[in-house]
Amino acid sequence: MDRADKDLAFLLQYENIAWYNQGEVNILDRRVYPAKIDYVTCKRHEDVALAVADMVTQSAGPYTAAGMGMALAAFEARDFNGTGFKEHMEKAAQTLSNARPTTAQRMKTITSGCLEAALAAREAGRPADISVRDHCVSNLDARYRKLAAAAECLVDLFPKKATVMTQCFGETIVGQMLRIARERGVEVKLICPETRPYFQGARLTASVAYDMGCDVTVITDNMPAHTIQSKKVDVFTSAADVICMDGYVVNKVGTLQIAIAADYFGVPYYVTGAPDRSHSTISTVTFEERDPEFCLQAMGVRTAMIGVKGYYPAFDATPPQLVKGVVTDRGVFSPNDLASYYSGNNCGEYD
Amino acid sequence: MDRADKDLAFLLQYENIAWYNQGEVNILDRRVYPAKIDYVTCKRHEDVALAVADMVTQSAGPYTAAGMGMALAAFEARDFNGTGFKEHMEKAAQTLSNARPTTAQRMKTITSGCLEAALAAREAGRPADISVRDHCVSNLDARYRKLAAAAECLVDLFPKKATVMTQCFGETIVGQMLRIARERGVEVKLICPETRPYFQGARLTASVAYDMGCDVTVITDNMPAHTIQSKKVDVFTSAADVICMDGYVVNKVGTLQIAIAADYFGVPYYVTGAPDRSHSTISTVTFEERDPEFCLQAMGVRTAMIGVKGYYPAFDATPPQLVKGVVTDRGVFSPNDLASYYSGNNCGEYD
Repeated sequence: MDRADKDLAFLLQYENIAWYNQGEVNILDRRVYPAKIDYVTCKRHEDVALAVADMVTQSAGPYTAAGMGMALAAFEARDFNGTGFKEHMEKAAQTLSNARPTTAQRMKTITSGCLEAALAAREAGRPADISVRDHCVSNLDARYRKLAAAAECLVDLFPKKATVMTQCFGETIVGQMLRIARERGVEVKLICPETRPYFQGARLTASVAYDMGCDVTVITDNMPAHTIQSKKVDVFTSAADVICMDGYVVNKVGTLQIAIAADYFGVPYYVTGAPDRSHSTISTVTFEERDPEFCLQAMGVRTAMIGVKGYYPAFDATPPQLVKGVVTDRGVFSPNDLASYYSGNNCGEYD
Repeated sequence: MDRADKDLAFLLQYENIAWYNQGEVNILDRRVYPAKIDYVTCKRHEDVALAVADMVTQSAGPYTAAGMGMALAAFEARDFNGTGFKEHMEKAAQTLSNARPTTAQRMKTITSGCLEAALAAREAGRPADISVRDHCVSNLDARYRKLAAAAECLVDLFPKKATVMTQCFGETIVGQMLRIARERGVEVKLICPETRPYFQGARLTASVAYDMGCDVTVITDNMPAHTIQSKKVDVFTSAADVICMDGYVVNKVGTLQIAIAADYFGVPYYVTGAPDRSHSTISTVTFEERDPEFCLQAMGVRTAMIGVKGYYPAFDATPPQLVKGVVTDRGVFSPNDLASYYSGNNCGEYD
């Protein structure tokens, strides 16, 4: 394998973290990665929903997992009659979409596509489980192409030697960004806040970057402001769970305070992704609070006394005035003009 | 013990974390507290310096430890002649003062006082080790009185129901603040960021508060900005390692970004302590970087892949424009007018 293939393999490894085959879905357990390479095996689509809720997979992983869960649902219903099959698939789509409230809208888009693929397969007399999986894979391909296009636009914004701060996993976009930077001779130093309580930054973002040969430094989540100042960070960038049409960015908790600090020090914050037409404003986003106990432990070791409370807001909202640009497959948009993203000829949804 | 005594016992327990007795200093190991109550025993004053460097004790603990280390040095030199004793004590003072660069100035004040006490004891034919320990205890008493006076001023700034965010340990000031708030019927809800990489917020600040019957919630260090907004925080407060005469506040890393976020949301940041005349500006402060490996683990469990770098700035500097007030034993001062603290009649150094 040459270097480019190796990178592609990495991207696929990190992205194809859920895979349907012969009546089961295996999901890479990102809660323990990279210390352990472990898979959670799901024999029922409800187990896939549970794994998503339990943070077995993160970042864009839940979307892939939900699609593979739909393939599993199609397998479960392989001997049902037409009505029974449709009902079972609709129920599965609902269960999988609602596994995590913050991303329910985008999940619904994915599971609806899978439902259609399943029904079309039955119509044509093809095995629906395999058709749904193929549908997911072709969606992933389209997604990679869009991410690569967005990464091209992002790297355009870097100086020749760029110190870049990320937040949370950002999955393939980080890999694409580093690949494109290298192709163009842009030297990137990556600084990854660890992203408590799950340490996705330390465990996942930093691992992807290191595997790709990047100079990567992990800091704890109280250090971004000082580090922006002391290490002369050029750009702060993150992916997003939702980019609302009013320019609010919903992402892993911590994004807001890094964006505030970046703004304070005059460092631009660029978010990658695409505006989400299912959220015309931030007011329609459901903010997920997770089990507070998770904030009272680290890597499984208790930190606080019994009796002390925890609070675990999983996401925060960064207002448009702190966002320098929304970097998409179609170019960079102002957070105040996201309608333009959809006014071109190519208006396919980014998923 | 009634409630007030119990609180005092707590304050003493948390403060008297180092104690000299019969040729040894025992230091409470705050790195493992509260999961384990463990003491590091030092038989030589060099071991005390090492324990301070290794973060066995934190917050104001190193000042107490350094004083007790001087008592131990006096014991070591008990049979030396006059010149030999003085030389040994001077060398010990230097070793202990320089255990941690950021606080070297303040440490020097402490060890100089102990040196004088030791020499005076020798002059008078009293055991120098006991005299140095007594000197430390009387310093602690004076310190408690000043902290209580500062805490009175701080609570003056709270609404009747106050949601207060802290940063790092802040040791006795937190205890005094909560005691005084209760006496005055001010209802305090405390929110403690965990303070990576040592979790002082989760392990120490939260434990003190919980033991005192306070409603206390721990969040991870990426959550302060969101929490300030969502939980309607009234005040952000911290102690400081150094308050420079130009109004810059040097404190545990993370203080800066919480102060920036607080400012963004219009929440005041009050620092407790006293201006340090040995630092007329921030430019004379040495910023300590610690072992980067500590940012690649949590509670002893590795988080990042081998090969990924770490960066561990232990402190950051918050500029005066982000500080609403410097809360001292003599009232609240503007960070732009700290000379006034010393222009009154009572000009003793705050230590």
